[in-house]
Amino acid sequence: MDKSKKFLEDNKDRFLEELFELIRIPSISSIADHKPDMVRMAEALKASLLAVGVDKAGVFETEGNPVVYAEKIIDPSKPTVLVYGHYDVMPVDPIDLWDSKPFEPEVRDGKIWARGADDDKGQSFMHVKAFEAMVANNELPVNVKFMLEGEEEIGSPSLGKWCADNKDMLTADTILVSDTGLIAQDIPSITTGLRGLSYVEVKVTGPNRDLHSGLFGGAVANPANELAKMIAGLTNEDNYITIPGFYDDVIEVSAEERALMAKAPFNLEEYQKAIDIKSVSGEKGYSSNERTGIRPSLDVNGIWSGYTGEGAKTVLPSIAQAKISMRLVPNQDNLKISKLIKDHLESNAPDYIKVEVTPLHGGQGYVSPIDLPAYVAADKAYTEAFGKRPVPVRSGGSIPIISTFETVLGTKSILMGFGLESDAIHSPNENYPLFNFYKGMETIVNFYKYFAEEMK
Amino acid sequence: MDKSKKFLEDNKDRFLEELFELIRIPSISSIADHKPDMVRMAEALKASLLAVGVDKAGVFETEGNPVVYAEKIIDPSKPTVLVYGHYDVMPVDPIDLWDSKPFEPEVRDGKIWARGADDDKGQSFMHVKAFEAMVANNELPVNVKFMLEGEEEIGSPSLGKWCADNKDMLTADTILVSDTGLIAQDIPSITTGLRGLSYVEVKVTGPNRDLHSGLFGGAVANPANELAKMIAGLTNEDNYITIPGFYDDVIEVSAEERALMAKAPFNLEEYQKAIDIKSVSGEKGYSSNERTGIRPSLDVNGIWSGYTGEGAKTVLPSIAQAKISMRLVPNQDNLKISKLIKDHLESNAPDYIKVEVTPLHGGQGYVSPIDLPAYVAADKAYTEAFGKRPVPVRSGGSIPIISTFETVLGTKSILMGFGLESDAIHSPNENYPLFNFYKGMETIVNFYKYFAEEMK
Repeated sequence: MDKSKKFLEDNKDRFLEELFELIRIPSISSIADHKPDMVRMAEALKASLLAVGVDKAGVFETEGNPVVYAEKIIDPSKPTVLVYGHYDVMPVDPIDLWDSKPFEPEVRDGKIWARGADDDKGQSFMHVKAFEAMVANNELPVNVKFMLEGEEEIGSPSLGKWCADNKDMLTADTILVSDTGLIAQDIPSITTGLRGLSYVEVKVTGPNRDLHSGLFGGAVANPANELAKMIAGLTNEDNYITIPGFYDDVIEVSAEERALMAKAPFNLEEYQKAIDIKSVSGEKGYSSNERTGIRPSLDVNGIWSGYTGEGAKTVLPSIAQAKISMRLVPNQDNLKISKLIKDHLESNAPDYIKVEVTPLHGGQGYVSPIDLPAYVAADKAYTEAFGKRPVPVRSGGSIPIISTFETVLGTKSILMGFGLESDAIHSPNENYPLFNFYKGMETIVNFYKYFAEEMK
Repeated sequence: MDKSKKFLEDNKDRFLEELFELIRIPSISSIADHKPDMVRMAEALKASLLAVGVDKAGVFETEGNPVVYAEKIIDPSKPTVLVYGHYDVMPVDPIDLWDSKPFEPEVRDGKIWARGADDDKGQSFMHVKAFEAMVANNELPVNVKFMLEGEEEIGSPSLGKWCADNKDMLTADTILVSDTGLIAQDIPSITTGLRGLSYVEVKVTGPNRDLHSGLFGGAVANPANELAKMIAGLTNEDNYITIPGFYDDVIEVSAEERALMAKAPFNLEEYQKAIDIKSVSGEKGYSSNERTGIRPSLDVNGIWSGYTGEGAKTVLPSIAQAKISMRLVPNQDNLKISKLIKDHLESNAPDYIKVEVTPLHGGQGYVSPIDLPAYVAADKAYTEAFGKRPVPVRSGGSIPIISTFETVLGTKSILMGFGLESDAIHSPNENYPLFNFYKGMETIVNFYKYFAEEMK
């Protein structure tokens, strides 16, 4: 793979320019106004795949945003890698906290700054370029398929059906995904677990209009106060989630495995310093890594009601709303959990308010064994590129589609991510270090070499 | 006063047009951008007072928005009525719930629809026109002074000092105010009590940026969840406010007075139906009227944090904020209460979040005896105009400046309001029935007649 690696090195600047072109398309999947951008983005990706030597590429319609599919079959008897990524990005609010414009990428301090720089345009594009390098230098050892979707950030509502409809086309020995992170630039890691997700919106309605808080305050239930009580009641003083049945399907991780996990490097002081908090907080009896890795959680992602402008408005609001998500561990079913919280909040609503809970999206958790050929190949690929063996970790994040792939296609995924916690994905000032962008491509090329060997 | 009343009848349409001109100026005091509108509004009022026969009128600068003052002294030995009103209005959010534009008044279904139609442009202007009628027909029996401010909706921060600085000029036998309401069009009432107000903003800060709720959720305290817990903890299951010391200065109203109050007409079913709620909710052991009339209350007026747009964003927000106000009963000091809630929330904040409480505005409560000459005159004025004796009521609302008048000027106020609960003041679709507008002017003219008699 030496020629391919030299090619990567020689074409660094061009790759960056090409990535910037893709980032400039504001493909925010959760905002309907950006629908045309999703189509532009898919077409741009198709063009970039055709340009680097795939046999064929297409933009496939779905119920939602299109899927870009491409393949290069060098020999049907050889193993096949299916690369998955997503071209949609998160919204950019609050926009005023960005130091540069989210869709006008720039390099500062050795990092790319833009929405999607890491998640997942940057990481997906590394696969396209690693593929280009191997094809251009006749070093591609296996068949490759690309499947790039535009709905990951909204829970991949269309991809499961599309996979089922195109199952034969998608046959592969492993699914290769870069949508996770490394512990640090000098501590490579491979994600072996993901949390599931149940994301709901709660709407509390009191009086049919905003009331004067003086004339009615104290006599009519205030939906904002009521919503606060409902949220407060979802956890107890030990940060244990109190929705009845919530923990029924949680498999407790053995003391032995917890002891192994505890060996992963973690510096509490640095962790706190990086996000400027004096102390951490979470479920009693678990470490910070355990709280995100092996335990479910519940977060208010957004809340809004009443007057939120400048100054004082004495209003008793008619409506209060919140977005609440729960991260789930493998074996917890997201549809069941969404129903539990809906039933819990709606059935316990006092008669002086109306409560409506609407599931917005979700997905199952995922666990991957570390003796699969793809894991072994990835292990070697990182070791060669970083000079250090990667640590297997369970991530707190969710990629709902990964468990769907297993169910629908019967194929396990290998999560070779190259992001860092400091990349601020989903936040203002998302960024992606150039080191990770280039080192990641080298690691991917290594992966193909070792995966072909492991599959012999 | 027959000629004056005929004059009112003959000039109905003109009065409405003149009011509309004033309403069209968007004098929102809580939004800094509207500062020029405040000045325009004050100048327009001065002009309208000069046009109807005052001896002199002026726009007086203050630290904040100007005060419009005018007077007509027919005979220094005669009694003097000081008319107080305010020309500032509330913000118009949420603007999309208005059926017509808030600053483009129109008449539909016998009502004026606009921000300020009732509160307090409509009600203040009735005094200017009643005065015009009496002056034009040589029927004005007493001296009249007008004091119209532009900061009532933000707690009248400048008027107390202005009153102190102009105490001699403002000497009067009573202060006449129309900024309250009637129980119904066929049940006239006079407000004898007002609640005080303490209004604060709470800011909870967690991590220094929005975090990915998957990677950090469960391990880092979420400011929105924490704020919900703090709000929930401010009241208990009996809707009793739990801030230590909050009730220390509350004077319990005697069983006898409560029995009298209970005779005021109140139809719970209609009350609930009017605002479309299935049941009321409030402090245990008190009726709805008592909950707003003689008991303090605590309301979230606004709350906001995280992602509030369309769809699902999995963010653990950095900041959560709320506007919280407490209505107070006479003898509760608003500054003391603001300090109590600030100390309570800040000192109980866990170390994984920062909590800042900023008092935004406030005022003391007020009680007026019903044997004052002004009350007796108002009683007769309503009885003559409505054919029914008015009911004395304690309002749940606050007009913080009323207690300041008593302290600074040593003058009691008589609260002759003509609004209705359905006027939706402070809400979208504020309105004011033409019946109330015209009947109110007639009642005001009656008041002057009876007040002159009572003061003889």
